[in-house]
Amino acid sequence: MDDPFVIVGGDAAGMSAASKAKRENPDLDVIVFEKGEWVSYAACGMPYYVKGAVDDLEDLVAVTPEEFREERDVDLRTGHEVVSIDPEAKTVTVETDGDRFDQPYGAMLIGTGARAVEPPFDGFDLGGVFTLRSMDEADAIEDYVDAHEPASAAIVGGGYVGVEMAEALTERGIDVSIFEMLPQTLQPFGKETARVVEDHLRDQGVELHLETAVQGFAGGEHVEAVELEDDSVPADVVIVGVGVAPNVELAAEAGIELGPTGAIATDEYGRTNYDDVYAAGDCAEATNVVTGEPDHVPLALTANRAGRAIGTTVAGDPTPTGGTAGTAIVKAFDLGAARTGVIDPDLAREVGFDPVSVTIEAPTRPHYYPGATDLTVTLVADRESERVLGASVVGREGAKRIDTVATALHADLIVPELQNLDLAYAPPFSPVWDPILTAAKVLAGKLED
Amino acid sequence: MDDPFVIVGGDAAGMSAASKAKRENPDLDVIVFEKGEWVSYAACGMPYYVKGAVDDLEDLVAVTPEEFREERDVDLRTGHEVVSIDPEAKTVTVETDGDRFDQPYGAMLIGTGARAVEPPFDGFDLGGVFTLRSMDEADAIEDYVDAHEPASAAIVGGGYVGVEMAEALTERGIDVSIFEMLPQTLQPFGKETARVVEDHLRDQGVELHLETAVQGFAGGEHVEAVELEDDSVPADVVIVGVGVAPNVELAAEAGIELGPTGAIATDEYGRTNYDDVYAAGDCAEATNVVTGEPDHVPLALTANRAGRAIGTTVAGDPTPTGGTAGTAIVKAFDLGAARTGVIDPDLAREVGFDPVSVTIEAPTRPHYYPGATDLTVTLVADRESERVLGASVVGREGAKRIDTVATALHADLIVPELQNLDLAYAPPFSPVWDPILTAAKVLAGKLED
Repeated sequence: MDDPFVIVGGDAAGMSAASKAKRENPDLDVIVFEKGEWVSYAACGMPYYVKGAVDDLEDLVAVTPEEFREERDVDLRTGHEVVSIDPEAKTVTVETDGDRFDQPYGAMLIGTGARAVEPPFDGFDLGGVFTLRSMDEADAIEDYVDAHEPASAAIVGGGYVGVEMAEALTERGIDVSIFEMLPQTLQPFGKETARVVEDHLRDQGVELHLETAVQGFAGGEHVEAVELEDDSVPADVVIVGVGVAPNVELAAEAGIELGPTGAIATDEYGRTNYDDVYAAGDCAEATNVVTGEPDHVPLALTANRAGRAIGTTVAGDPTPTGGTAGTAIVKAFDLGAARTGVIDPDLAREVGFDPVSVTIEAPTRPHYYPGATDLTVTLVADRESERVLGASVVGREGAKRIDTVATALHADLIVPELQNLDLAYAPPFSPVWDPILTAAKVLAGKLED
Repeated sequence: MDDPFVIVGGDAAGMSAASKAKRENPDLDVIVFEKGEWVSYAACGMPYYVKGAVDDLEDLVAVTPEEFREERDVDLRTGHEVVSIDPEAKTVTVETDGDRFDQPYGAMLIGTGARAVEPPFDGFDLGGVFTLRSMDEADAIEDYVDAHEPASAAIVGGGYVGVEMAEALTERGIDVSIFEMLPQTLQPFGKETARVVEDHLRDQGVELHLETAVQGFAGGEHVEAVELEDDSVPADVVIVGVGVAPNVELAAEAGIELGPTGAIATDEYGRTNYDDVYAAGDCAEATNVVTGEPDHVPLALTANRAGRAIGTTVAGDPTPTGGTAGTAIVKAFDLGAARTGVIDPDLAREVGFDPVSVTIEAPTRPHYYPGATDLTVTLVADRESERVLGASVVGREGAKRIDTVATALHADLIVPELQNLDLAYAPPFSPVWDPILTAAKVLAGKLED
């Protein structure tokens, strides 16, 4: 390959691919075009910056542009926007500082990420109304809170960002209300886990408005209220976190195919319908290990892993990107909530399963050992095959135990196998039967009925 | 089956089998003969009783004799010792209060457990020299410490019991020395994990005497010193924890076969060479999921699980006992250390593997998130097949992450599969690449060399 490996977008997928490709093949020219100035930053850390748990926004940067350039020999060009791709000619057109040039590529990776969805709310442009997707937005929220000392905050959307920002803003002494259109928060976690989180949010003083559609925001220069159909709720600052949409326009205009989720379709190597064009991260699909279907999981590990695999492939060693189990974990004040696989019964039925589920509460340590707390575990399996489909857990400690089920999903384990896992036990760490095993025992009993 | 299900031994395996058999088939008569008075107690909790973290020894009892008798309808007879088994006639001979009677059985479970190994040390019978295997011994240690207020303690053996008792006695204000014949403590955890634990033990003021053979104990009525080959170390109390031996004499005398480990040989249903005679728990073998060979893992989960499966089988629904991965976890002051599978390279070679291993240190959370600590992960795989063979981890938090590898062992995953697991990430819980994934990445690289 004489022409360089060109990467569009300098975040998790792109920079992982760049670093890995250079490490595997130092002779390969690797160019990254990033339209902004930040690269390789931990977007997931931004709520903790607003909360005050992370001092400096720069702390969220894993590797600096200088390190990429000098230590990893990556030709990283910030402030460079790729405005079109010609996959037949194998070139991209780049704009920087008003100039425009064509860059040929041998292989290309699209890592354009996703953006915050912005519903057509009235007053979205008022001061104090934010989404939280970029480092600049995190900075702007922090500055706004410092300058205006809001007494009340409205969070639109009860997903990860909503729950994390509720904690962050409460910690800053602000009264927080969450507005969610659905009957529950944290929809992908299932209703049992959500209920535990919601009770805890209320205990922490967060006001929950479920099944509540926001119409828009009212105020003068700055936001003052959230407008509902027949009510108006005061709010000195607003965070809108109602999901993300993959940035696929550049790819779609170039004839690169999108998949059923609306993100860029890829094969097991992260390849698009053009052989030398890869896509990874929040703009691309990944294969769900439970359903075998394309899925859109805009989370950091999926992006990092796919980027790294594609870097290896482009460097000459074809490497699958790996599937996704849709594993996720979120902190909500003193609780951890986690999920993996297929939990929603309707979704399970759509892909041909007959879901059976149980929800149990089990202690994280034996009753006699100090500090035991309850973990609520929801476990889902297919009735006929007994295959484990997914799980959700929530509690004051132990949410990472979801990893046991995530591993079981990758390995297609059935419930009797899950139940017989030899997991670690000692009183300071777990009861004899880990809560995951207890859930598997109860579910095995239900499957026999 | 007209004759009852007779169970010899009322601890984890026996009482799990009794409870489950009655639950599955309430018409079945279930008799448990226990020679002592304690049943169904958490032996693993005893060090925490001595430490003072558990107030009452009775707190360690999971289910009381009355509950077994009244709520679970189990005919539990404490103070009854089975002195012989006649597997041809299908009877056991029982002694109680000097009386002796024969009890016919339809099916029988041997759950006689294990006992502390007692090397022929001089002075083993001195006051203040203890092993820690039974509730009565835990009580006696506690009483001795209260009455004699020892200034110094010697622990012979650097295994689980030794490390846990070092913490417990240090917490009671006693200067602790550990004497271990091998060059390391916690032998089954591998030397990398042991080294981290040993540094921490020393930091906590524990004196370690490795590669040191104890000859015996000296004193008057009470122990005053540990005698080494050419030294004598003062000790006001001594705990000997040099391993356990399965209680197999009763079975062996009856012609029930022992396996290569010296424990009772069983098939996948926990059956011995006699069709109606089962064995489970610390007296029995289990199949190692990595080697496929019989193994002797005297730990609580193995016992509980096998007992439960045998109870189900005897009640009419044949159920495999499940294999063991040899998973274990231990607290050493502020550290947690855990292990699973095959770690020792010599042991791996003995069963035909060509082991390759890496040891890495990785943070339990991103660098920017408060409270991150390092987890040291040792991961072992077979060179040719790339199959994961075992792992060991140690750190101030996150030792339960061993469960991910334990699950991978049960599922025969190879390193590239382990590396591609979709584990849970968010800054309060994990870095993007969980330490287990980081170890897998590094090991995958080494396997390619």
